[in-house]
Amino acid sequence: MENPATEITSNKKNAATFLTEDFLLQNEFARRLYHDYAKDLPVIDYHNHLSPREIAENKKFENLTAIWLKGDHYKWRAMRAFGIPERFITGDAKDEDKFRQWAKVVPGTLMNPLFHWTQMELLKPFGINEYLNEDSARAIYAGCSGLLQQDKFSTRSLLQKFNVEMLGTTDDPCDDLQWHRQIREEVVGLKVLPSFRPDKALNIKDRDSFMDFLDRLETCSGIEVNNMTDLLEALQQRVNFFHANGCRVADHGLSQMPAGFKLGTEAVYEFARFLKDPAARFSQPGAFAGFIVLELCKMYHAKDWVQQFHLGALRNNNRRMLLVAGPDTGYDSIGDYTQGETLSAFLNELDTTDQLAKTILYNLNPADNELFAAMTGNFNGGGIKGKIQYGAAWWFLDQKDGIEKQLNTLANMSLLSTFIGMTTDSRSFLSYSRHEYFRRILCDLLGKEVQKGQLPDDIDWIGKMVQDVCYKNAKEYFTFDRE
Amino acid sequence: MENPATEITSNKKNAATFLTEDFLLQNEFARRLYHDYAKDLPVIDYHNHLSPREIAENKKFENLTAIWLKGDHYKWRAMRAFGIPERFITGDAKDEDKFRQWAKVVPGTLMNPLFHWTQMELLKPFGINEYLNEDSARAIYAGCSGLLQQDKFSTRSLLQKFNVEMLGTTDDPCDDLQWHRQIREEVVGLKVLPSFRPDKALNIKDRDSFMDFLDRLETCSGIEVNNMTDLLEALQQRVNFFHANGCRVADHGLSQMPAGFKLGTEAVYEFARFLKDPAARFSQPGAFAGFIVLELCKMYHAKDWVQQFHLGALRNNNRRMLLVAGPDTGYDSIGDYTQGETLSAFLNELDTTDQLAKTILYNLNPADNELFAAMTGNFNGGGIKGKIQYGAAWWFLDQKDGIEKQLNTLANMSLLSTFIGMTTDSRSFLSYSRHEYFRRILCDLLGKEVQKGQLPDDIDWIGKMVQDVCYKNAKEYFTFDRE
Amino acid sequence: MENPATEITSNKKNAATFLTEDFLLQNEFARRLYHDYAKDLPVIDYHNHLSPREIAENKKFENLTAIWLKGDHYKWRAMRAFGIPERFITGDAKDEDKFRQWAKVVPGTLMNPLFHWTQMELLKPFGINEYLNEDSARAIYAGCSGLLQQDKFSTRSLLQKFNVEMLGTTDDPCDDLQWHRQIREEVVGLKVLPSFRPDKALNIKDRDSFMDFLDRLETCSGIEVNNMTDLLEALQQRVNFFHANGCRVADHGLSQMPAGFKLGTEAVYEFARFLKDPAARFSQPGAFAGFIVLELCKMYHAKDWVQQFHLGALRNNNRRMLLVAGPDTGYDSIGDYTQGETLSAFLNELDTTDQLAKTILYNLNPADNELFAAMTGNFNGGGIKGKIQYGAAWWFLDQKDGIEKQLNTLANMSLLSTFIGMTTDSRSFLSYSRHEYFRRILCDLLGKEVQKGQLPDDIDWIGKMVQDVCYKNAKEYFTFDRE
Repeated sequence: MENPATEITSNKKNAATFLTEDFLLQNEFARRLYHDYAKDLPVIDYHNHLSPREIAENKKFENLTAIWLKGDHYKWRAMRAFGIPERFITGDAKDEDKFRQWAKVVPGTLMNPLFHWTQMELLKPFGINEYLNEDSARAIYAGCSGLLQQDKFSTRSLLQKFNVEMLGTTDDPCDDLQWHRQIREEVVGLKVLPSFRPDKALNIKDRDSFMDFLDRLETCSGIEVNNMTDLLEALQQRVNFFHANGCRVADHGLSQMPAGFKLGTEAVYEFARFLKDPAARFSQPGAFAGFIVLELCKMYHAKDWVQQFHLGALRNNNRRMLLVAGPDTGYDSIGDYTQGETLSAFLNELDTTDQLAKTILYNLNPADNELFAAMTGNFNGGGIKGKIQYGAAWWFLDQKDGIEKQLNTLANMSLLSTFIGMTTDSRSFLSYSRHEYFRRILCDLLGKEVQKGQLPDDIDWIGKMVQDVCYKNAKEYFTFDRE
Repeated sequence: MENPATEITSNKKNAATFLTEDFLLQNEFARRLYHDYAKDLPVIDYHNHLSPREIAENKKFENLTAIWLKGDHYKWRAMRAFGIPERFITGDAKDEDKFRQWAKVVPGTLMNPLFHWTQMELLKPFGINEYLNEDSARAIYAGCSGLLQQDKFSTRSLLQKFNVEMLGTTDDPCDDLQWHRQIREEVVGLKVLPSFRPDKALNIKDRDSFMDFLDRLETCSGIEVNNMTDLLEALQQRVNFFHANGCRVADHGLSQMPAGFKLGTEAVYEFARFLKDPAARFSQPGAFAGFIVLELCKMYHAKDWVQQFHLGALRNNNRRMLLVAGPDTGYDSIGDYTQGETLSAFLNELDTTDQLAKTILYNLNPADNELFAAMTGNFNGGGIKGKIQYGAAWWFLDQKDGIEKQLNTLANMSLLSTFIGMTTDSRSFLSYSRHEYFRRILCDLLGKEVQKGQLPDDIDWIGKMVQDVCYKNAKEYFTFDRE
Repeated sequence: MENPATEITSNKKNAATFLTEDFLLQNEFARRLYHDYAKDLPVIDYHNHLSPREIAENKKFENLTAIWLKGDHYKWRAMRAFGIPERFITGDAKDEDKFRQWAKVVPGTLMNPLFHWTQMELLKPFGINEYLNEDSARAIYAGCSGLLQQDKFSTRSLLQKFNVEMLGTTDDPCDDLQWHRQIREEVVGLKVLPSFRPDKALNIKDRDSFMDFLDRLETCSGIEVNNMTDLLEALQQRVNFFHANGCRVADHGLSQMPAGFKLGTEAVYEFARFLKDPAARFSQPGAFAGFIVLELCKMYHAKDWVQQFHLGALRNNNRRMLLVAGPDTGYDSIGDYTQGETLSAFLNELDTTDQLAKTILYNLNPADNELFAAMTGNFNGGGIKGKIQYGAAWWFLDQKDGIEKQLNTLANMSLLSTFIGMTTDSRSFLSYSRHEYFRRILCDLLGKEVQKGQLPDDIDWIGKMVQDVCYKNAKEYFTFDRE
């Protein structure tokens, strides 16, 4: 691995020896690909859930639990599976005690991506090459928490250490984007751009949440919403505002594409009545969602944005814990929604009028990998390289097996050489080692193919493809630098 | 392989040389894991379909066909695929002729699990290290059938030879469990416990079968069932009775979890009328099934049982052969039922009132592997290690590929270290080599990861995990020893 | 690879060195299997979309674009993904310019099957062992286009070069089969037989297309269709006609098996009215399709034909391009239709009256691989070896990963030894290297199993299975030579 930023005295008997600089690289070709072509490329992390405020304020975290365990539902699920009481997970236990419970679980995470991630994130940025376990927990906690007080462990320093060139946050349409503006003005060498995530504008089924969104939308847009025309105008205003603040990407999280996307005249009238009558329910919530997202997609196309769809999650499965711990606390799951026909119909509708923007399709159920990858091929065209992307392995699938399956499926159904590569989709400033993880896996995959004689033994040819996938394609695909 | 119990003179030219003591163990680490950590552990076979009577009576089988081919629908399907006439499969041909037809098929089973199973089961317990084929059939049949007459090939001796510590049969709620009691009284060193399998109590759609079950339920429980209250009381009585006889596990076979599980007052009245009117059909059979299984699950939780759900089978596909040969004769298949939302809703309902027992979820369609494994994470908690289990590769998936996929999916989505491991789900006393098969596959999988530098090269650490998965986790998970 | 038919001077620096005679064969056992058992077997390509006219006329293609790019929607999708304008794909650009655009894409197809196919098809039949790219495009185009003018590159010469013994085209029920008759009379050493593909007879939903088909059916059969009886009689006439012209195979392309296949008396009357009333829509189009295909299947059974079902495609996703470029131009995709229950019910219905013909089931969504493979086992029987086949990896799945998955799934769920093997399903006379590709993959798969000690190290035993799968099973399964 790269030279650690900082050395902490470590216990040699407990050294994490598996984590060498050639980690995951099984042959010489793979090693050359990684070290000579991939390793030093900057990172374009076009989709994540980092806090722009924490970047703008150049925050330092108070201890290792605060930066590493807080909000990390991957670790929380592992802790629950291991039998750790909830008090040490989302409860009121002390930060150090939470950490020590986590440390107890780590030796039991063998074969789970958490094991690799944990050790990679300790090595970089903290320079710790020891296994985390009950014995090493106290020293590691103290050492890392100490480092986190140094300037070189502030959020921006961490991003710099991970060679991040650009990162895309995920933002509510009503966000005032003040932190993004502040970053733009103050920060050199790092582009932090917002993404437009209008999920709440679609969910008319939950009246309270929808009306709450509308209130905020009226306030931020200055447009009073009395009917559908007003709503679309207000949304357009937000798209314009986001665009003016550097946004070039939208994102949507849906279980599946809405089955309909047309609203007749009567439905338009119904919407106006719905807004005035607090007891009303909208009779076609699915078609409403489809209609709104379709209209939004036309706005994105007009702005030359990229639109993302994250499809297939089955969310908030545990009602009891939703009340206690809230959403995004580790109770989401993989759904088996039907995807083919609705996704096709939606993209087709936009393509028919040539209003289909560049699109990234992420799926959560690996049973649909081939379906999604093949779907991209129906709407490529217009002379745009990789116009419709089969997105990187997402969430539960963001692990070695999942990444390899995504890469192989993409390669078999479309062209790997046009892939825009990895994004973390993470809430943590320590997750950037996942780009390294992805690059190692990609290089290893290709190296093995060469070794088997299934690819040309030509390092320049394949090295160029690696660089395209790890950096250059994303750089070219997005229009971050264009007005 | 282990030293055979008995040697039969064998044809060296026909020796099954692939079946060495290091079978499936591709590297030194894997070999050490298997031989030093896994091999000698006792077997806890918590779910199978063995006959308690045959154990109680310490039965000896009259010949190799009787113990090996009779009831083995895996072999039957292979014979049909190979073009063997049905007369030699479920028909009236002589046992030895049936065996010789099977022997003809075996060389054509290469790459199917039957090939490995066949040779492993001949080696242990029979000590035969020859390939089974047309030439060797006669001698093998005679030799094994002879051995089967010896005391050391009785059912109990076989279980002892396979180091079985505990086994869980699958029993009708109306069973009197007399054989289980007899075994408990007479047999030392082997725990044989019943499991409660109330599928017939759920299937109100088939009135005849349901009323037949009710008749038997009334008789065995001594409770006359005139309404829903009576039905639940009678089922509770059977749960109590099973518990008193050592049962700590329930099991259910369903295509998918019922979509509803609530019955309104009117439905409760309808049920009482349904019982009296021989022409009546119950109007909500799905919700009835959901309601009954939900109420049963609350009873299990109160008793601290483990509940199992086998989901996804598409049964009795061949009407013509169902009439001729009956159910469970090789005409079942893999379904593509929607699983996510109904499974989530059902578990959620129990969890909401904190009445969710420890649960094992088995799925039959590998397209749903990740869905099931991820689902477990939504309901883990309460400080119970591995509370919700993603169950071992089942039925069509119980082969090397299927086992590896189950292990990898479990490892990626949850913690392999908390897995309770293999169970045979078998009807045959010769199937215990499948625990050996599973252990070899597990050790090989981990050994390969170490060799690739993806796991620590630490035999104690990984060896402990192997022992947990192969034996200790199951020992701890079930409450067989508790009152 | 085999000795090229013709040598073109090639650039050594650009030599496709990965394509050795041991391409894809990773160990010695695999190499022996391929070279000693598989390589020289004739090809039975029982299902493809070649033009019988082009065979009858022994056509020569005017240039490399005409034989290689025209109609090849695999290449077209890759070109679109790469960002090539449509003008060079299906547009009016010159043939050589189209070729040079394709050549530009090839280096970006690494990891896609197109890369292997491209280089294999250049090597055989053209003898070109250079990489195709922008630099080599001009010379390769000129060289190959020149060769294509020679007699030894006519369609029949190409088929001979690829050792094709039999090929099955795909034909409309109204086809007069004149080219097939001409081939039968004139061509020695190559059997070209029609297949009966009645999809248009099922699709009553699209009235115009259906009535157009009926017009043609009336003309060719000489039967006026006024009611259901007439329709079935006319279809029977076509089955008879096809049979008399050597057809022994039917084929159907459906998203999924129709959910119903029974039409009541009223529906039969409705059909008669539908025929007369140009404004009428048939009220049960699904059941109509099911009924017709069921009746057809009974006709096939009576003739001892083999019936094929290609299930799971989601077609014509791009409306805009359908208008411009027509169907089959690269806008089809993988669907996620529910398959289990309808497929079971349909096969069951035929089996109940013992009218189930030999059947090949192809699926397009790999999530259903295990479902399909397990389904075959429910209807095997009657002493017919491999009666119900889980068909070769199809379309999007016809690549190394897809082939390996199909083989492994088949092996695990059924008997690989009874598999009838590969078919190209192709529209191109150059696709026959895919049989070579398949054979190499099969031999490599088995060789690796032997190397791991998971199969007997017995070349004759396994070599026999390879020969069965590559040639002999198909030869035996179909009844091409029987009257």
